[in-house]
Amino acid sequence: MDLEKKLLEGNKRAVARMISLVENRDPQAFDLLKKLHNKTGNAYVIGITGPPGAGKSTLTDKLVKALLNEGKKVAVIAIDPTSPFTGGAILGDRVRMGDLSTHKDVFIRSMGARGSLGGISEGTSAAIKVLDVYGADYIFVETVGVGQSEIDIVKNCDTTVMVMVPGLGDDIQAIKAGIMEIGDVFAINKSDRDGAKKTAREIDAMLDYNDSDWRPPVTMTVAVKNEGIDKLVETIMEHRDYMKSNELFEARRIDNARNEIVELVKYKVLSHLFDNAYNEQMIHRLSENVVKRTTDPYTACEEIIVNIKN
Amino acid sequence: MDLEKKLLEGNKRAVARMISLVENRDPQAFDLLKKLHNKTGNAYVIGITGPPGAGKSTLTDKLVKALLNEGKKVAVIAIDPTSPFTGGAILGDRVRMGDLSTHKDVFIRSMGARGSLGGISEGTSAAIKVLDVYGADYIFVETVGVGQSEIDIVKNCDTTVMVMVPGLGDDIQAIKAGIMEIGDVFAINKSDRDGAKKTAREIDAMLDYNDSDWRPPVTMTVAVKNEGIDKLVETIMEHRDYMKSNELFEARRIDNARNEIVELVKYKVLSHLFDNAYNEQMIHRLSENVVKRTTDPYTACEEIIVNIKN
Repeated sequence: MDLEKKLLEGNKRAVARMISLVENRDPQAFDLLKKLHNKTGNAYVIGITGPPGAGKSTLTDKLVKALLNEGKKVAVIAIDPTSPFTGGAILGDRVRMGDLSTHKDVFIRSMGARGSLGGISEGTSAAIKVLDVYGADYIFVETVGVGQSEIDIVKNCDTTVMVMVPGLGDDIQAIKAGIMEIGDVFAINKSDRDGAKKTAREIDAMLDYNDSDWRPPVTMTVAVKNEGIDKLVETIMEHRDYMKSNELFEARRIDNARNEIVELVKYKVLSHLFDNAYNEQMIHRLSENVVKRTTDPYTACEEIIVNIKN
Repeated sequence: MDLEKKLLEGNKRAVARMISLVENRDPQAFDLLKKLHNKTGNAYVIGITGPPGAGKSTLTDKLVKALLNEGKKVAVIAIDPTSPFTGGAILGDRVRMGDLSTHKDVFIRSMGARGSLGGISEGTSAAIKVLDVYGADYIFVETVGVGQSEIDIVKNCDTTVMVMVPGLGDDIQAIKAGIMEIGDVFAINKSDRDGAKKTAREIDAMLDYNDSDWRPPVTMTVAVKNEGIDKLVETIMEHRDYMKSNELFEARRIDNARNEIVELVKYKVLSHLFDNAYNEQMIHRLSENVVKRTTDPYTACEEIIVNIKN
């Protein structure tokens, strides 16, 4: 297949086409990924997550440049699970990355496609494989927000950088619980703003409850001024070395593979269900009856499940 | 049943207990909700969503107070889908609401429980029913972030307020796509900050593409100073009146019921699958093999599905 050959040669247009096929759930693309799976596993995958406004894109931009300066080949996938659009919708706005996207050793792509059955996490896994075949040394996976979908997305990564920002107020309390489990490295970005040290202290204090041997370091950055970037790259590499020297790297990749398989099974089962046994008219009638109070949602659910089994 | 009687009497401890039972997926609690479904549908449900740091909790607090001053009975559910904790975990930090939670006509509750199969959206639906039976005139559902889980959560609401804040930078572009579909009313909070008017203009400009008859109004608030709150309450009520006068209210409730039923079916099917057919050892072995490249995730998924069918 021509596409396979071009992918293996690192052709960018082939990469873009392959990711589009994966987004559109083209069965032939997945057949090709099956075949290419044994060519993957070489790229190091770095997740960049954190609340909107933390400056993740700018930070990613600077990290990419730092790695390019070391002669590395780098790819970026920017994931927006809330967007109903595919492809260029967001990327179009990321003008800032314009100078990077034409660099011969960089591939940048936005992914926003999401069906009603989920699927963004598996889509990300598939795109990572494509970029791995493309020959990227480092793949950045950048999320827009920090919520459950974003946590699922970074479960594809080897190291996850949690980008925080001063001034989150009380919301930091709520975010805390969610980020404990996913941040390997913290970056307080926009750290020239008031309250940066306080935010760093709050995050560091919460890490006292972290019971793994790796205590996530808290670094300070000002991405727009390129401050703290080298230190952050260094910290990411320390985490990588730590993981690799402790067999934790392998263990995490097995966990990630498990997660990918489970998400694929969920998606497959739900699509089968909704394609075959799911009667649109029936569910509309039941929904009306729930609102009229002639039935309730729990009974309606049972009725559909009986219907599926028959 | 004693709990039923106490709920119908508006006993707060019974409400708290019932929500805990629902969070723990107690089958008897759902049997009771089935029975009580015909007592629900009276409360008006208002979603409060937006990025972390937008000041949603403070804003909700002020909206609650405004409605209490009108003699209304109000309930608040604060949802944190990223948190592995239940109940008081976050609420403990929401000291600000301390004076409200002892008010006789207010019930405030955090919900953070979430299993690996999702379920936060149905949990919210169930909690709304409990608070409806409790006799709340208005139920606020407040999310922590703005991502796919949050969009699913606000699909339980009659009116959704999207809270924005100046200074989101380029992330606003990415958020935009997601919020187009869910914001009925916009509030630019912390609007005494630099850039508030610019943010309002950006949001207003994007609403040009909104093709419904209701053009979501953009209001300005400074919740900590209680500024713009009455106007926001008024705008929410305008949306309610618009919905009710156009049969859109009924249509949205049918949509919401549909969403609830679909989520219940998904959850039921996946729990059945993972309880019965899902072999932990098998999936671990497959995950190891994916990492060793002796199989790939797509083939592993197919193998599990064949196993389920047998």
